[in-house]
Amino acid sequence: MGSVAWAQGYTPVLCDYSAGGGVWMGAGHIQDPASQRLTWNKPPKSVLVIKKIRDAGLLRPFKELCIFLTEVKGMIVYVEKKVLEDPAIAADESFVAVKKKFCTFQDDLDDISDSVDFIICLGGDGTLLYASSLFQESVPPVMAFHLGSLGFLTPFSFDTYQSQVTQVIEGNAAIVLRSRLLVRVSRESTEKKVQGPVDETGLIITNGENNASHRTMQYQVLNEVVVDRGPSSYLSNVDLFLDGHQITTVQGDGVIVSTPTGSTAYAVAAGASMIHPNVPAILITPICPHSLSFRPIVVPAGVELTIKLSPDARNTAWVSFDGRKRQEISHGDSITITTSCFPVPSICFRDPVNDWFESLAQCLHWNVRKKQNHLSSEEEEEF
Amino acid sequence: MGSVAWAQGYTPVLCDYSAGGGVWMGAGHIQDPASQRLTWNKPPKSVLVIKKIRDAGLLRPFKELCIFLTEVKGMIVYVEKKVLEDPAIAADESFVAVKKKFCTFQDDLDDISDSVDFIICLGGDGTLLYASSLFQESVPPVMAFHLGSLGFLTPFSFDTYQSQVTQVIEGNAAIVLRSRLLVRVSRESTEKKVQGPVDETGLIITNGENNASHRTMQYQVLNEVVVDRGPSSYLSNVDLFLDGHQITTVQGDGVIVSTPTGSTAYAVAAGASMIHPNVPAILITPICPHSLSFRPIVVPAGVELTIKLSPDARNTAWVSFDGRKRQEISHGDSITITTSCFPVPSICFRDPVNDWFESLAQCLHWNVRKKQNHLSSEEEEEF
Amino acid sequence: MGSVAWAQGYTPVLCDYSAGGGVWMGAGHIQDPASQRLTWNKPPKSVLVIKKIRDAGLLRPFKELCIFLTEVKGMIVYVEKKVLEDPAIAADESFVAVKKKFCTFQDDLDDISDSVDFIICLGGDGTLLYASSLFQESVPPVMAFHLGSLGFLTPFSFDTYQSQVTQVIEGNAAIVLRSRLLVRVSRESTEKKVQGPVDETGLIITNGENNASHRTMQYQVLNEVVVDRGPSSYLSNVDLFLDGHQITTVQGDGVIVSTPTGSTAYAVAAGASMIHPNVPAILITPICPHSLSFRPIVVPAGVELTIKLSPDARNTAWVSFDGRKRQEISHGDSITITTSCFPVPSICFRDPVNDWFESLAQCLHWNVRKKQNHLSSEEEEEF
Amino acid sequence: MGSVAWAQGYTPVLCDYSAGGGVWMGAGHIQDPASQRLTWNKPPKSVLVIKKIRDAGLLRPFKELCIFLTEVKGMIVYVEKKVLEDPAIAADESFVAVKKKFCTFQDDLDDISDSVDFIICLGGDGTLLYASSLFQESVPPVMAFHLGSLGFLTPFSFDTYQSQVTQVIEGNAAIVLRSRLLVRVSRESTEKKVQGPVDETGLIITNGENNASHRTMQYQVLNEVVVDRGPSSYLSNVDLFLDGHQITTVQGDGVIVSTPTGSTAYAVAAGASMIHPNVPAILITPICPHSLSFRPIVVPAGVELTIKLSPDARNTAWVSFDGRKRQEISHGDSITITTSCFPVPSICFRDPVNDWFESLAQCLHWNVRKKQNHLSSEEEEEF
Repeated sequence: MGSVAWAQGYTPVLCDYSAGGGVWMGAGHIQDPASQRLTWNKPPKSVLVIKKIRDAGLLRPFKELCIFLTEVKGMIVYVEKKVLEDPAIAADESFVAVKKKFCTFQDDLDDISDSVDFIICLGGDGTLLYASSLFQESVPPVMAFHLGSLGFLTPFSFDTYQSQVTQVIEGNAAIVLRSRLLVRVSRESTEKKVQGPVDETGLIITNGENNASHRTMQYQVLNEVVVDRGPSSYLSNVDLFLDGHQITTVQGDGVIVSTPTGSTAYAVAAGASMIHPNVPAILITPICPHSLSFRPIVVPAGVELTIKLSPDARNTAWVSFDGRKRQEISHGDSITITTSCFPVPSICFRDPVNDWFESLAQCLHWNVRKKQNHLSSEEEEEF
Repeated sequence: MGSVAWAQGYTPVLCDYSAGGGVWMGAGHIQDPASQRLTWNKPPKSVLVIKKIRDAGLLRPFKELCIFLTEVKGMIVYVEKKVLEDPAIAADESFVAVKKKFCTFQDDLDDISDSVDFIICLGGDGTLLYASSLFQESVPPVMAFHLGSLGFLTPFSFDTYQSQVTQVIEGNAAIVLRSRLLVRVSRESTEKKVQGPVDETGLIITNGENNASHRTMQYQVLNEVVVDRGPSSYLSNVDLFLDGHQITTVQGDGVIVSTPTGSTAYAVAAGASMIHPNVPAILITPICPHSLSFRPIVVPAGVELTIKLSPDARNTAWVSFDGRKRQEISHGDSITITTSCFPVPSICFRDPVNDWFESLAQCLHWNVRKKQNHLSSEEEEEF
Repeated sequence: MGSVAWAQGYTPVLCDYSAGGGVWMGAGHIQDPASQRLTWNKPPKSVLVIKKIRDAGLLRPFKELCIFLTEVKGMIVYVEKKVLEDPAIAADESFVAVKKKFCTFQDDLDDISDSVDFIICLGGDGTLLYASSLFQESVPPVMAFHLGSLGFLTPFSFDTYQSQVTQVIEGNAAIVLRSRLLVRVSRESTEKKVQGPVDETGLIITNGENNASHRTMQYQVLNEVVVDRGPSSYLSNVDLFLDGHQITTVQGDGVIVSTPTGSTAYAVAAGASMIHPNVPAILITPICPHSLSFRPIVVPAGVELTIKLSPDARNTAWVSFDGRKRQEISHGDSITITTSCFPVPSICFRDPVNDWFESLAQCLHWNVRKKQNHLSSEEEEEF
Repeated sequence: MGSVAWAQGYTPVLCDYSAGGGVWMGAGHIQDPASQRLTWNKPPKSVLVIKKIRDAGLLRPFKELCIFLTEVKGMIVYVEKKVLEDPAIAADESFVAVKKKFCTFQDDLDDISDSVDFIICLGGDGTLLYASSLFQESVPPVMAFHLGSLGFLTPFSFDTYQSQVTQVIEGNAAIVLRSRLLVRVSRESTEKKVQGPVDETGLIITNGENNASHRTMQYQVLNEVVVDRGPSSYLSNVDLFLDGHQITTVQGDGVIVSTPTGSTAYAVAAGASMIHPNVPAILITPICPHSLSFRPIVVPAGVELTIKLSPDARNTAWVSFDGRKRQEISHGDSITITTSCFPVPSICFRDPVNDWFESLAQCLHWNVRKKQNHLSSEEEEEF
């Protein structure tokens, strides 16, 4: 049985895509996905609690959980500053003593990536996407509670949070390593249009040549990179390259490059098949493509994809990363996508297989049917 | 750069699905699929030549190739007995001397699986499926020529066969390891109906309990296992289990369980996405399902799938393996499917990535379009 | 508001497809589909009761209904002989007096098409398909009760049958005229293979030339004509003609030609859109087509479609009509399909629009969703 | 054989959707679509020539055509002012004499709808959409030339324009009446955001109550009405009503309501079936819907659809009409859609059936295939 060891909180996951060396044999190295389990080298000491903001229904669970973690479990709780600035929390006298023990931070100023052993999310799938965006390299294990209906990324119900959290802290939990995409946006132009509030979580990488007219932004993406036509009423027209060779041109509303985790998000709405998070693959799905034959394709993790405007594109395109950091792409810019070395270790409610099929049924009603027989008139030979 | 070493012809590929032990890290162990190359430990000595029968257009290429292999390359050529029984070959005086040097065998009588270093196929994709069926365990590298249009499994054109074969013998070739499915059909009943000529290539495994009323047949499948309603006019109704848990019920014309290689065969016609052969996964695709929401799903290689008739199924179902060995499935029977430890090493014309996209375009016209702009009226703002 | 008048039971619906003469103006002649209502010229006197056989749960409702129709409503009840031969009915002493008043008939011997004013079906959608098959020309209004879950063709619940039937007899009912397809199978060969029990409801038409080697069978089809590969493991390969011009070749598992009513039966499982029964159209849907771009098409009622084996087809094909009369099609045979002049007047529970959307939701779960927001990560900009 | 008579140019097409009166009988009134032909009551005298602007390749054909119409055919040519302002035309000395004979007009100032007998379009499908937008009521017959590749709406090649135009003027032409949608946008708010240049071709209808806070815009749409989320990163969330009853809620990127003509434009990219222009129907297609089971539906022409923001929608939506007049929709606004009484009479190159299948093949590569057999491994039984 495989195990994922988290020492001092967690062990950084090493990347060996280019390692090679051994014989790759079909699916030879894939373990039974149900067998991966969380192992702490030392008990986790610090926990980051992420709460969806502006949702009154989360206040009570949030406070309860923080008190439990701080006072019962003796953990150091990290909370984002803006969460505590919520008037309903700021005004709560009874919460003052607990709050004092928190470590607070600001997303855009403080780097907590080496300080946190463990993450708990309260809210929808978006909280896990947000947690992912805070960690550009290794991500601590994430335990995600849905407060309303089950989400793909939020398998835990809050009802029994105390026993569930205790189980996880004690290492009794299955885990699924959700691969992320490492995306680099390289720009020729010095100017960049960003839609909405500018919020540079992505790393800015200046290239060695000190060339001010060329810079690269880098993102870790858990669900998908979307390239679309934005507010333009013209079709988008982008070229897609795999390992340097052009494989096709996308003419349509856009294209989605997603992880298996993202296959059940936007890609499924655009017609893709659903891919279990343990499949090491990248899914390429056109959005409303011009061509009838442009079926989605699945390529192996380990390839490098590049997207550029087609030379004959009449318009720019827009790109976003897990629905964030939306920005314009012009001629000369390029988007390069590979599987990241830093997956998100996502703690399972039961195990990766059962959790996934449960969420397919609950979130997508996948093949949920009345038992009945009248689909085909062929049923009715004897009527 | 990875390499696949074939000693003494070839090295049996070892199976370590259950190995575990290390940390599985997303897609961490996947090499760049373009980097896998063929390496012979010793030069190949014996070659199995497979020719589609009853196709007059293949006679000349077959003879030319055999003469080249025997006389120029000094190899031992294995040919199936029924190929030589073709009147056009049997009557050819000029071919007698060459034929004498052949090793002949009969599919159902002789086991050549340890005697052959290398396979050459002449004909359509079916020749490679047939080659696969001859090897229940390790498969030697296969080089497949299409004589007409490019096939998914037959990347080589015969025009320059001499230089191409020489390159391969010298080890200058990329390779793709096409995973197969190991399928076990377990029957309660002693009687079995088989449609068409009975042809027992599958291994018969008697279980230890010496229970005559229970036996297991085993198949290696390169494209897909199809379970359908056969000649019945009622919908098929089968339950699908993954690692022992029931995940869904299939009500419709049937269900296809396919390898990535098989994704571009029957599955794509039933609406599946196309999956590159290097993705370690199994594709489950319903055929004309009753339920609107029954989208295909992709699960990791390494899981065990089981298919049984639903308890309330009014009819039997039929199963076939790469389109062969079609047989009836009754209440009490079960079909168990895992990824096989014995993939088919398929020699590439260029490399696994370029060959695949070339065949998507040539065989499926994937996203082949006129460059034009009139899809959306939105194009026409300025008309 | 339009009305459908049934005099002396019912007025035969006249056919004026070829009439022309006036200006056809887009959709000009289409009435509001919710406005069509049933009007009896004289109160209906005779009623055919159709009951699914071999379904014990239907016995009590069947008897209750027959007693109500006979004794309370004073109607003449027609029942098929084989229904009364059911042991549970034959043995019921209390039912003898009622049975005596029935007119019994045998499907294959007696023609009741001019004797019946009104039809009541008890069972699944198959009972209505069966009712349709009994009337090769005009069909009396049909009121269909589902005994379990709602069907597309069986909108009435049996709970309040007395008031419902009374309403209909009094003419308080909306109606939907479900178009049928008129199918002619023309054979060169004298021999015909029929799968299953031979049951010649179709009309046999001998052509004037008294040519024994050529004959035509004719069928009225309410859901669909299916041409498929039958038990063959080869793809079917048929040519499709529209008004005499070949429009395409179907290579795949087969092709479905369906009415709008049939769009929610087999066609929807093969990927078609759903078409409201009031749209005068014919739907052509390939079954698992070889070609990625073979999307279903919708053509106007009024065209003539012809299906033949392709000259290069290696196998025969099989055709069935509403899942019945399955038979083999060989080279030289042809299947000609037009919209029939004799629709099935199907009585609505509420009206054609509400009934249809209700059945989409109940039978197909069409767009039935939890209200939730986590599909797209784009939702989560503010997380 | 039906005919469409155009007196004094053309006869306004009368609307009788609500007429009813007769028995509607399935598809009874539909003529053979191949039989509709153009008939002029008097020879056409005035012709509107529409040319795509900013396309240098169209200048020579445009001039040639205008000279032919003016000097050879003696017709009065209407040309839009901005077309003649193109520097390449303005500077052409040799064209001055011809230009003098033109009637010029400005789209937004002059109403030419009663002055034109006949329309000729030069360019892509967009020219016909533009022609449609100029005529809010009856539309004269349109003859459309493609200068590059065949379009769905532009069946004529320019090579033999003289004989083709002569044929049409002499009444030797088949015609297809393309239905349009009549769309009314009713706003509660006084302010309206319009994306792009404000261009009020739509009719503004002030309601009787002289209520400044409520106004209605009206559009004639040939392809489709699109409601989408616009630049918002949230899913659109709109309610859909049919004849006043809510039939579903659309959660996703948006929804397309299209004519059969529009089925081959944006709708087909979003997954719809293709509908022949002669089918009197309206097609409703979700764009990337949240729900797996939200298949497109086809409802009869003659219904009234209404679209509103869902009460719980967090964002506005955007609507456009044939890709034009894009504008924002807020809570309280509503979009009402019915089949228009004023179709576009579109002149066929051959006839409505052949033209349509030709454009399916040329523009969408519909079921264009290599003849090959390797789809299914089932092909390969005898390999």
